[in-house]
Amino acid sequence: MSASHPDNAPAATAASAQAFQTRLADRAAAMETTLTEIFNRRSAAPPRLLAAMRHAALGGGKRLRPFLTVETAALCGAEAATALPTAAAIELLHCYSLAHDDLPAMDDDDLRRGQPTVHKAFDEATAILAGDALLTLAFEVIADAGAHPSPDVRARLTLGLARAGGMTGMVGGQMLDLAAEGRWGAARLSPDDILHLQALKTGALLAFAVEAGGLVAGADADVQARLARYGKAVGGAFQIADDILDHEADAETLGKRAGKDAEKGKGTLVTALGLSGARAICDELIDGAIAALDCFGAEADMLRHAARFVGARRS
Amino acid sequence: MSASHPDNAPAATAASAQAFQTRLADRAAAMETTLTEIFNRRSAAPPRLLAAMRHAALGGGKRLRPFLTVETAALCGAEAATALPTAAAIELLHCYSLAHDDLPAMDDDDLRRGQPTVHKAFDEATAILAGDALLTLAFEVIADAGAHPSPDVRARLTLGLARAGGMTGMVGGQMLDLAAEGRWGAARLSPDDILHLQALKTGALLAFAVEAGGLVAGADADVQARLARYGKAVGGAFQIADDILDHEADAETLGKRAGKDAEKGKGTLVTALGLSGARAICDELIDGAIAALDCFGAEADMLRHAARFVGARRS
Repeated sequence: MSASHPDNAPAATAASAQAFQTRLADRAAAMETTLTEIFNRRSAAPPRLLAAMRHAALGGGKRLRPFLTVETAALCGAEAATALPTAAAIELLHCYSLAHDDLPAMDDDDLRRGQPTVHKAFDEATAILAGDALLTLAFEVIADAGAHPSPDVRARLTLGLARAGGMTGMVGGQMLDLAAEGRWGAARLSPDDILHLQALKTGALLAFAVEAGGLVAGADADVQARLARYGKAVGGAFQIADDILDHEADAETLGKRAGKDAEKGKGTLVTALGLSGARAICDELIDGAIAALDCFGAEADMLRHAARFVGARRS
Repeated sequence: MSASHPDNAPAATAASAQAFQTRLADRAAAMETTLTEIFNRRSAAPPRLLAAMRHAALGGGKRLRPFLTVETAALCGAEAATALPTAAAIELLHCYSLAHDDLPAMDDDDLRRGQPTVHKAFDEATAILAGDALLTLAFEVIADAGAHPSPDVRARLTLGLARAGGMTGMVGGQMLDLAAEGRWGAARLSPDDILHLQALKTGALLAFAVEAGGLVAGADADVQARLARYGKAVGGAFQIADDILDHEADAETLGKRAGKDAEKGKGTLVTALGLSGARAICDELIDGAIAALDCFGAEADMLRHAARFVGARRS
């Protein structure tokens, strides 16, 4: 960590944005290899289950969460490779949540990243079990000695992942999201309710991805507090950008069905505040994320780019 | 641990069997309290989700897995109370698996312990999410400092729970169980295939419940090896007894639909070997479980009774 840097929010030049895209792609490729190896080491599992888990977890996605974990760990002085198992565990948890969210009883989606969802490619029972197995595997990977030499750090990583993923985190957020559709009676969400819902559903795991990078690298309390601010803001921006995308994009760009929020009458920040209101909050969050890193110099540029990328992404 | 005991398999007298039933009921009541407290501490979760989790986890069952954990820990010199969080985590994992197994896409059961299953009492989406949240909560509880003062033990407990519950354990076994119904093409299972399936589906978690008791108490390697033999045998006996029950009992005794294995044309040890053949293997496993404890004296009687109980239970 360098001393305070006068130019801590450099303009995103075309060249530096390109460097970010290259890094993101490289990290995604490394994650693909890590995940593939994790599955290959478990070939004793029932073949259909393993195939469905691979379908759910391999070959797609920006791998934004593991990117955040690995880049944060690198910023805090760790070798990128040492953060890979932890990053993989977080991605496995994310992939399980997609497989379950896509189920007919939940969001009922046929497409994900332009491919059939797990229950379409296989069947519903297999998709439920593949999700359960991915969730469990995430904890197997993060509690394993390979994730970190210190059992204390592993126990803290496990606890953090469970909190981010559970009833007061991601699963709780998905429950509120279904309620927001009016499934169990009329739902009228204030902008604050929507921000709370999104903080749970998407924000908690994104924030933990950042926090986990600091934990793996043994960051001190001050840095962890800054990382927490950064992670929370990036998580918030991510979901608002998702809502904006859902309103603007078509299915071809998005790789999944677009406009489904409006179709379900679901309250989002865009419906509550309009496109420009939502955009303004998103931009504010991105600025806040970048400001949280102001004690770092150029070594934090990848995380600054990541914050901008999250707000401006097109898929 | 006492020296080798000449009378290591005492006859189950009416009085000692009664003492076991009393202990089992007392431990179940303590588990109910522990689980209730775990849920009460998480009242920030969405109310409908929390209600469904309580429905899935409270107010029922013999609590055999936590009984095994607590009794094993006590046998190895730990205070029973110190094993309660770990035992609760194992029970939470068990309860999630019941909620998901009962889903329409899986075993499609309306009743469980004489009560409506989670998707019947609530709805399918809520049952899926309640299961996901219980599974995640199990890891939150077992990785928490409350489960054990040593982070190393907590990391080992987490890893053991993930392996017992995941793709090469319980979830893998459930997948094989669905395959055995012929869902994805004809299935012809040999008795060995059935034993393997059951070792994964039910055996792995029961065996871990015993192992976890030893881990919490810091048992030495020799004792852990004996506990592993005991746990594996009890797990095997449990599922065979379940198959026998499914053939013999009616829904009223069982608190769930009976005869469903035959209805689905599912291969069990009873269909493969007949009732007396299955009974013989079950008895052999119970004898093996009791023999594994032959280095212990009367202090292991509760675990010996538990092995007999598992083989002879009527619900």
